[in-house]
Amino acid sequence: MPNLDGRSLELQTAMADVATEVHAVLDRLVPDGGGETGEARLAAAMRYAVLGGGKRLRPFLVVESASLFKVAPMAALRVAAAIEMLHTYSLIHDDLPAMDDAELRRGRPTVHRMYDEATAILAGDALLTRAFEVLADPAVHGDPGVRIELVKELAQAAGIAGMCGGQMMDLQAETESLPLEIGAITRLQRLKTGAIIAFSCEAGAILGKAAPQLRHALNAYAHDLGLAFQIADDLLDIEGSAAETGKDTGKDSAANKATFVSILGVERARAQALLLADQACQHLDPFGAAADRLRDVARFVIERKS
Amino acid sequence: MPNLDGRSLELQTAMADVATEVHAVLDRLVPDGGGETGEARLAAAMRYAVLGGGKRLRPFLVVESASLFKVAPMAALRVAAAIEMLHTYSLIHDDLPAMDDAELRRGRPTVHRMYDEATAILAGDALLTRAFEVLADPAVHGDPGVRIELVKELAQAAGIAGMCGGQMMDLQAETESLPLEIGAITRLQRLKTGAIIAFSCEAGAILGKAAPQLRHALNAYAHDLGLAFQIADDLLDIEGSAAETGKDTGKDSAANKATFVSILGVERARAQALLLADQACQHLDPFGAAADRLRDVARFVIERKS
Repeated sequence: MPNLDGRSLELQTAMADVATEVHAVLDRLVPDGGGETGEARLAAAMRYAVLGGGKRLRPFLVVESASLFKVAPMAALRVAAAIEMLHTYSLIHDDLPAMDDAELRRGRPTVHRMYDEATAILAGDALLTRAFEVLADPAVHGDPGVRIELVKELAQAAGIAGMCGGQMMDLQAETESLPLEIGAITRLQRLKTGAIIAFSCEAGAILGKAAPQLRHALNAYAHDLGLAFQIADDLLDIEGSAAETGKDTGKDSAANKATFVSILGVERARAQALLLADQACQHLDPFGAAADRLRDVARFVIERKS
Repeated sequence: MPNLDGRSLELQTAMADVATEVHAVLDRLVPDGGGETGEARLAAAMRYAVLGGGKRLRPFLVVESASLFKVAPMAALRVAAAIEMLHTYSLIHDDLPAMDDAELRRGRPTVHRMYDEATAILAGDALLTRAFEVLADPAVHGDPGVRIELVKELAQAAGIAGMCGGQMMDLQAETESLPLEIGAITRLQRLKTGAIIAFSCEAGAILGKAAPQLRHALNAYAHDLGLAFQIADDLLDIEGSAAETGKDTGKDSAANKATFVSILGVERARAQALLLADQACQHLDPFGAAADRLRDVARFVIERKS
């Protein structure tokens, strides 16, 4: 893993640039509804959620992995926007009173507090649906085989064997106060957050019609990255403040929720995150220096403060 | 429109046959999760909802429209199953306490009452996602261009310019007690239920790579059918009983909700439904006798008791 000291600024600049670009694409792909009808309210809630900032980590992974295969930037940005819609839908629904009952997200009131619960449920539904619509558009790729592959992979990453299944495991562990051990938490996080991070990295390979072993290398990188990301998140939940993270903190420990940190302790969790980030970088060997920025991401993920 | 007396039994048998077949396909495409994990609970809730019966009208429209173009039956049944997953997701979310707060659906407790709210939200999310995954599968059609067209059309019918937008309009009209007039209700219903009914009919044409004018004819049929269906639904809400319909009745009038019936009155609403069903049948002229069963459906829709 490269030393980030000299590269940190460059990475932050690159991430900010992609965040700006994906914001502009999302702004076009989720237009406001005009007028005073129900659709206008729904569009406003969708835009409030999806244009509300955030690190845009997943879009950055799409853009960087796509650049390894010389994919047209606008194609990568559209796929990045679709993944961000999907990610935002999952945040809206996870924040609902019936789920995590969160008050803050990205430093602002959650969608159900800003609007109401019904609007939040529908805004999530509509963003999930729009993500698939965007992937189906010929602007993403001229070859329908590429577009349908993206649809299939996104659906798998988002469904019962991905994000939905992981969230259900998480809720059930919480309501039944199940004492999860490290294997179960790893599996839960692979489903809940890992699958979409993996898809973000693989999307570039799919768009670039990459050789299978390169696609697998990106998948392996993404899986280690996703777990490192989650452990860092758990550490932030213990150590961060709401002002820094822009969301409620200390909720997991208050809820006695089993996390990597509650089981491993802070020191071992931190060491494990570092190990995973290193391992993630090793999977990028086949790409040589072209993947340096993805290597930087691995360190960023475990060093971030929000 | 043909006289149904002699054909009623045949239609009912045909619909029951398709319902049985689509049930079997859904049973395979939404497998149980096994074990005691969160995924198993989620899978159980999905199966409870999607295998809980219902008229399976949309699947029947897919199968019948596909048969006009000699589409392989199993391909049509897979698309039919995907549409039924989407329809079921919309029922689960519409029934939630934050939306219509319904207690009964298809004669059984709604998903959030049988399980809990969080599980119901996730079961809906996972069914919506699974619908797209099923359409992306090569078993639907060997040509990825056909599959991506199905994905695109389903996403449009389900999103903000379709089902989600219609439901939002409906909720807003209710919470703000807006006095909708007939134009607004027609638009609302075209979005909320019409778009998916139209997609069900067009899906057969897409699978069969039909000529554009035949696809448009089916679309026009479906739009009139969808409105006739909705007016009949409103009439049932006034006149039916929970025992016959399997869901809460009288809710719309209790909520002072503007419907076709509240505006037109029972007699004019019934006449309008009959007119629309006749008009729907006329759009089927290009298909000759091959479309007789779709003509029967138009009469069934306005004569049904549940």
